[in-house]
Amino acid sequence: SSKKNAADPIALPPGTSSEDFKEYIKKAVEIVGEENVTVINNKDELTKEHYTDPSKAHDMFHVFDKDYFVASAVIAPRKVSEVQAIMKLCNEYGIPVWPFSVGRNVGYGGSAPRVPGSIGLDMGRNMNKVIEVNESGAYALVEPGVTYADLYAYLVEKKLDQKLWIDTPDLGGGSVLGNAIERGVGYTPYGDHFMMHCGMEVVLPSGELLRTGMGAMPDPTQPHVEGGTLDQQPGNKCWQLFNYGFGPYNDGIFTQSNLGVVTKMGIWLMVNPGGYQPYLITFPKDSDLPKVVDIIRELRLAMVLQNVPSIRHVLLDAAVLGTKASYSSSDKPLTDEEIDAIAKKLNLGRWNFYGALYGPKPIQDVMWQVVKQTFGSIEGAKFFLPEDVPDKNAVLHIRAKTLQGIPTFDELKWVDWLPNGAHLFFSPISKISGEDATLQYSITKKRVIEAGFDFIATFTIGMREMHHIVCLVFNRNDAGQKERVHKLIRQLIDDCAAHGWGEYRTHLALMDQIAETYNFNDNAQMKLNEKIKNALDPNGILAPGKNGVWPATYNKQAWRLTAESSLSR
Amino acid sequence: SSKKNAADPIALPPGTSSEDFKEYIKKAVEIVGEENVTVINNKDELTKEHYTDPSKAHDMFHVFDKDYFVASAVIAPRKVSEVQAIMKLCNEYGIPVWPFSVGRNVGYGGSAPRVPGSIGLDMGRNMNKVIEVNESGAYALVEPGVTYADLYAYLVEKKLDQKLWIDTPDLGGGSVLGNAIERGVGYTPYGDHFMMHCGMEVVLPSGELLRTGMGAMPDPTQPHVEGGTLDQQPGNKCWQLFNYGFGPYNDGIFTQSNLGVVTKMGIWLMVNPGGYQPYLITFPKDSDLPKVVDIIRELRLAMVLQNVPSIRHVLLDAAVLGTKASYSSSDKPLTDEEIDAIAKKLNLGRWNFYGALYGPKPIQDVMWQVVKQTFGSIEGAKFFLPEDVPDKNAVLHIRAKTLQGIPTFDELKWVDWLPNGAHLFFSPISKISGEDATLQYSITKKRVIEAGFDFIATFTIGMREMHHIVCLVFNRNDAGQKERVHKLIRQLIDDCAAHGWGEYRTHLALMDQIAETYNFNDNAQMKLNEKIKNALDPNGILAPGKNGVWPATYNKQAWRLTAESSLSR
Ligand SMILES: Cc1cc2nc3c(=O)[nH]c(=O)nc-3n(C[C@H](O)[C@H](O)[C@H](O)COP(=O)(O)OP(=O)(O)OC[C@H]3O[C@@H](n4cnc5c(N)ncnc54)[C@H](O)[C@@H]3O)c2cc1C
Ligand SMILES: Cc1cc2nc3c(=O)[nH]c(=O)nc-3n(C[C@H](O)[C@H](O)[C@H](O)COP(=O)(O)OP(=O)(O)OC[C@H]3O[C@@H](n4cnc5c(N)ncnc54)[C@H](O)[C@@H]3O)c2cc1C
Repeated sequence: SSKKNAADPIALPPGTSSEDFKEYIKKAVEIVGEENVTVINNKDELTKEHYTDPSKAHDMFHVFDKDYFVASAVIAPRKVSEVQAIMKLCNEYGIPVWPFSVGRNVGYGGSAPRVPGSIGLDMGRNMNKVIEVNESGAYALVEPGVTYADLYAYLVEKKLDQKLWIDTPDLGGGSVLGNAIERGVGYTPYGDHFMMHCGMEVVLPSGELLRTGMGAMPDPTQPHVEGGTLDQQPGNKCWQLFNYGFGPYNDGIFTQSNLGVVTKMGIWLMVNPGGYQPYLITFPKDSDLPKVVDIIRELRLAMVLQNVPSIRHVLLDAAVLGTKASYSSSDKPLTDEEIDAIAKKLNLGRWNFYGALYGPKPIQDVMWQVVKQTFGSIEGAKFFLPEDVPDKNAVLHIRAKTLQGIPTFDELKWVDWLPNGAHLFFSPISKISGEDATLQYSITKKRVIEAGFDFIATFTIGMREMHHIVCLVFNRNDAGQKERVHKLIRQLIDDCAAHGWGEYRTHLALMDQIAETYNFNDNAQMKLNEKIKNALDPNGILAPGKNGVWPATYNKQAWRLTAESSLSR
Repeated sequence: SSKKNAADPIALPPGTSSEDFKEYIKKAVEIVGEENVTVINNKDELTKEHYTDPSKAHDMFHVFDKDYFVASAVIAPRKVSEVQAIMKLCNEYGIPVWPFSVGRNVGYGGSAPRVPGSIGLDMGRNMNKVIEVNESGAYALVEPGVTYADLYAYLVEKKLDQKLWIDTPDLGGGSVLGNAIERGVGYTPYGDHFMMHCGMEVVLPSGELLRTGMGAMPDPTQPHVEGGTLDQQPGNKCWQLFNYGFGPYNDGIFTQSNLGVVTKMGIWLMVNPGGYQPYLITFPKDSDLPKVVDIIRELRLAMVLQNVPSIRHVLLDAAVLGTKASYSSSDKPLTDEEIDAIAKKLNLGRWNFYGALYGPKPIQDVMWQVVKQTFGSIEGAKFFLPEDVPDKNAVLHIRAKTLQGIPTFDELKWVDWLPNGAHLFFSPISKISGEDATLQYSITKKRVIEAGFDFIATFTIGMREMHHIVCLVFNRNDAGQKERVHKLIRQLIDDCAAHGWGEYRTHLALMDQIAETYNFNDNAQMKLNEKIKNALDPNGILAPGKNGVWPATYNKQAWRLTAESSLSR
């Protein structure tokens, strides 16, 4: 990297001179106010390292240099018109901009941009209102900064939490909007967040404002906000009720993409089903996995399993309850015997299935009977309701909240399995089949252990597939571990691709590699993505490189990151 | 229109000379074989007029001249590589092409193209295989020509129909693929066909082949078809299991659009829920509608109503059971008294709710208790199970099939309410609210009656909205009626837009008008659609004008159809 002016940020936007950057920042300050522009001048300022108070400028869980994926400045617009103005300004200066909502996308890069020196567009800092919770329509309309915890608190405050449930990921600190457009998952019957979203407001790379679905239809029956800009006007009354509208259905192209900045989103809320019973089933043996998975497939398809349950490897639960050091003095991957001992101590199985029944008692009874009978056919299976588990810290008590959409933060603890804990997520999709799950498990486990780490993972069960979430925990202050975990995840991607398995989401550093595995017919999908990208963003300013999609203004080959890439800028 | 050469079709593609057309056809014959190219030379050949044997070249239920929306030639590719070749040929000659799968899109234009003289691309004639029904994954992979009836027959033949259910529209003759990409609906819990699709194979306007979602990931574990083209290779094993894949989720832009020709599609099948009980509740008074709708909203949101039930106006059922003449000699809209008399005769209410319970008996019992109690609060409500209705032709016996996904053709009969029956569908979206439904009903009914027609309609209940399907039946040999129905539907579109209501789908003639009602922020959505269209289809050959999206190669203003447009070419 070139010589740095004293006033320059750690990383200037690519191809931008110190002067142009200064000028850009001056104009940005005119738009959003001084207090909402932070130039990132100094590596020493990158001190935030924790989910609870996340960095807005760099990847807290970096395997590359700490200041590799770093913003030149973070800009936090106060309203939609300012987002539009910033997009126009970025076009004017050819400066890339990376929007994020809350910055808790940990394991996938946090708030950090793919292109060093991008502007970090902090959508959540000032735009964090629950615009509406509609009781009769059972939906919420939210701004980017609204977290699951915020939305839940809002329902509690309005005394609506007994009527309407939200759906939350394991942790409640993420953005409801940001998570849905990354196609994240939760665990109630509304666990597929993109499926359950309804209607978006989007600022296009050009700065133009769009509403999708029924939002594209003006609604003269809605109150008009005098003197308000268009984004401040209430939407069509069906905007949050019907996703598709008329003509091409565009919402999908604003997910996991770099085609728009989402400024509002509707999300469906689940009506209290009139009864709820969480449970845990433990399975003692490693080799129980295929049996468990095959039963799950049958029950999930038959809608006896009504939600997104999960099968957790015992070490994930163990890590929620303690550090590795609290269980063992080993600095090697734990052996099967050690793992069995931990399971015994925690009164858990090697595999632990957290599920729930939804509905009035008589409905639960029918479901429960089936659940007990089918899973009960597996030798050694044990059934637990929360009242059967005295330890108040036990994971079942956490999941009892999560599976009814009550946000928690407890599971954050597994990140501290190792000292100075950080993590990467490896998230391949698997068929819900005992054979597939076992093969995917054994291949990934083998590599994880070869690399010297413990295998910590969960399978979350979707409609017809599982997101296999492998949590690669490493010590962020240990250069050797960082190197190993980076090599490991690249190896896992290749191993899985060789079996036809692809990841659903990934870290900044791995986007190119994974995108290249989705290469049917000479990368036809990528060519389509690029065509659309170039049509909507001719200057290539919005999140270049996101999920491997590079605008024509970038030399893709030069920007690709591979196993051989330098970890410093 | 200009002078016609003897060998010319009824309508040449716009801007195409007789010579070029001849040359094009010669090359098309070389691609697909003589038997798969039909030039439409003569108005007299446009004789097909019925759903059961639909025209592939014109709109059977035309309000414009019979030969207005007409193809120059119909071409039926035998395989995907031929679709690709035809797309390339169309690009070479700048000839527009309108794909359809089966041609039963009646009420919306059938198989006819928006631009007269387009090539009709008959995707279904030769490409009509059920490629796979996967029992353990509960999905099917189908080609365009597979109808609901075909897919059901396939399941029966393979003895899978007791295990796996399909979801069918009112009629079983449509294309499973074509209906889903038009975002059509059925009535089981899997009634939202786009939501329940999974994975597409698409030929882009350029002729390039694409697989979406997990289909973009090659799968070395799948058997390789020696010597087969890419489209003949089995897809990734998760292609029909997980919709989203990695990066932008593109499937939505291939629905109700002109961005691709879909050659394969996955559709999820519902696993037999272990019990099923259809029912009918009749409500005597016109003014019961708001009460019925408000109850439905509560029960649908609470998942007591597990599927897509419908509230049908009595005249829809009456029309299934007889012609207007069989009830009345009036040639005016039936009066309230006459309608009441018909209801009485048929033992129906003014409004009739067709629902079903899914699941084992004890679950049904719980649901039924709630259904009985809530709807029972409406004075005069009557409950019927199929065994309570001796008339074997009664609509309840038809719906008893439809609501479990068994295709039927019986409801076709309502089209014959008037002699030489034809129809247009008017399909606005409504909030599931008594107030909204009543207002939308009264506004549309008033106009329908003013125009001299009977009000025949149904509300189909989605997750959080209703598709209000108004069936505008007219006598296709009566020029006056055709003129009135055309005026009427344009009026209805405007009336509804004034209330913020938009349509979810429409007839060729009305696409421009409806697209123009979705005009938030100076038509921002349309500008987006056009940008994508021009990027993917620079020559503007694929279905120009579909749902109002015109490529840059067309003069949109000149092509728009409005109330003032001439009904002849
Ligand atoms: C212990 C633990 C458990 C977890 N469990 C889950 C889980 O169960 N399910 C799950 O899904 N995740 C889980 N995660 C991952 C992660 O914490 C969540 O997905 C979280 O919601 C993502 O952070 P965020 O919402 O703050 O994202 P943000 O940083 O706000 O957004 C993430 C990305 O989305 C895009 N984006 C965000 N907002 C916008 C916008 N307005 N416009 C355009 N693009 C935007 C950007 O590319 C951004 O980088 C877990 C993490 C940990 C540590
Ligand atoms: C009595 C009656 C009841 C009905 N009930 C219902 C109902 O309950 N639900 C419902 O949804 N509809 C209903 N319909 C309308 C209609 O019959 C169905 O929607 C039918 O499935 C559409 O016809 P099709 O599948 O043959 O369409 P096609 O003509 O095959 O396709 C329709 C359009 O989709 C696009 N298309 C089709 N195939 C492709 C392709 N391969 N690539 C690109 N674009 C393509 C084209 O624009 C085409 O014009 C009803 C009609 C009648 C008369």
